[in-house]
Amino acid sequence: MSLSAEQLAEYQAFAEQLADAAAAAIQPYFRAPLAVEDKGGRLYDPVTAADKAAERAMRELIRARYPEHGILGEEEEATAGSSALTWVLDPIDGTRAFITGLPLWGTLIALNDGQRPLLGVMNQPFTGERYVGTPAGAWRNGDALQTRACASLASARLMCTTPDMFDTPARRQAFDAVAAQAQLLRFGGDCYAYCMLASGFVDAIVEASLQPYDIQALMPIVEGAGGVVTAWDGGSAQNGGAVIACGDPQLHAQLIELLRHAA
Amino acid sequence: MSLSAEQLAEYQAFAEQLADAAAAAIQPYFRAPLAVEDKGGRLYDPVTAADKAAERAMRELIRARYPEHGILGEEEEATAGSSALTWVLDPIDGTRAFITGLPLWGTLIALNDGQRPLLGVMNQPFTGERYVGTPAGAWRNGDALQTRACASLASARLMCTTPDMFDTPARRQAFDAVAAQAQLLRFGGDCYAYCMLASGFVDAIVEASLQPYDIQALMPIVEGAGGVVTAWDGGSAQNGGAVIACGDPQLHAQLIELLRHAA
Repeated sequence: MSLSAEQLAEYQAFAEQLADAAAAAIQPYFRAPLAVEDKGGRLYDPVTAADKAAERAMRELIRARYPEHGILGEEEEATAGSSALTWVLDPIDGTRAFITGLPLWGTLIALNDGQRPLLGVMNQPFTGERYVGTPAGAWRNGDALQTRACASLASARLMCTTPDMFDTPARRQAFDAVAAQAQLLRFGGDCYAYCMLASGFVDAIVEASLQPYDIQALMPIVEGAGGVVTAWDGGSAQNGGAVIACGDPQLHAQLIELLRHAA
Repeated sequence: MSLSAEQLAEYQAFAEQLADAAAAAIQPYFRAPLAVEDKGGRLYDPVTAADKAAERAMRELIRARYPEHGILGEEEEATAGSSALTWVLDPIDGTRAFITGLPLWGTLIALNDGQRPLLGVMNQPFTGERYVGTPAGAWRNGDALQTRACASLASARLMCTTPDMFDTPARRQAFDAVAAQAQLLRFGGDCYAYCMLASGFVDAIVEASLQPYDIQALMPIVEGAGGVVTAWDGGSAQNGGAVIACGDPQLHAQLIELLRHAA
């Protein structure tokens, strides 16, 4: 499905309204004492009232404005639409950052046309930063973003949210081998790391165990800034799982060679 | 050496002037393209122009105002003073966070009376946060801080800058054993993690390979908020090395038992 520039601008403005609504729902909870509930699963996965309130606020706006669109969110059941367009929402990406008080979480909003995420927003209200990506480019608070050239892993700054996210021994070993060759490794980034990559401060992100709503909004931001995001096998990253993002396409090709066997 | 309340207030005001001077020196470099130089050593250890400019600015102010005080900083040779008082400076704690664009670095300023750090400041100018600790308490931008009660590791939020910082296999194994019992583990914090602990959002920090200037400013902040910071053997943390910080003294006692054998 292809969208006109006018349609895209309309959806971008609406996505920013969603970000504002989510921020209003979330901000009273940030750095306030929280009741944390464990959803279960392999990793400790806290769900907060803030997550739920923000997703509810965004879903209400979408249903009112575009009842024909689908919705895929972290906290509630997916809703199919009569249109090919689906909003893909993560009200708080980086819940562990959120509950420990770190300003590295963000609200992620993507619009998927049935083939790929066309539009992405990452909003961080505590630092006052909004990152937006479209087929026309990527911006931080309106300023254009550009990834930096870094063709070699030996000079690359690598990020990953946590080494615990690699869900098979082969993936963990493959990550460790890449990390050993990088110039610098930094853990603890969530969505914020992808925005630093789009901004030219980070060269590569290697992760796994992602959900579709963890990555779709970040793809247009990284790609709009000149970077590449794929699965470890080189296919689309939009379904989540094991993901590589690079600012420089040459570095991306190098990492695919190192990681493909564990894809 | 004991200081009167008036003397302490004077030094606190001066420490905040140092923080302002460091911020003015650093801010033009944050998220600007940087020449990064490798000081060598086991970990990649970038030194930036910002680090050097900020330490120079702070040293000039100290020499002009308190020429009798000693200075211990990360970037230049230590200067002994004729007084027992020494300023302990880390212009940018979290250089890896700094060069990857993350707002988790901070300027650390401590005043040590020859026995312990009496006064500590952590300043993060991008988020506009200043944490101060003295024997009278701890504050974030003037608001009093209090750690939270968390008597058991099973309900604790644990932070650590990176698992690579454990410099012996025994220390890494001891850390891993603690991490496996914690409710939540988050990597990537540097000085910011200690301020989140003082604020009641993090319960424990377990680290190693720290320098004296990495920890001295954070000790009065954590202690002023009701927490405990020591070396893994229970002794003073002021010389750096392997350090434990906890918001709840009961949790601290539990961690000492788990880590002491690798101290």
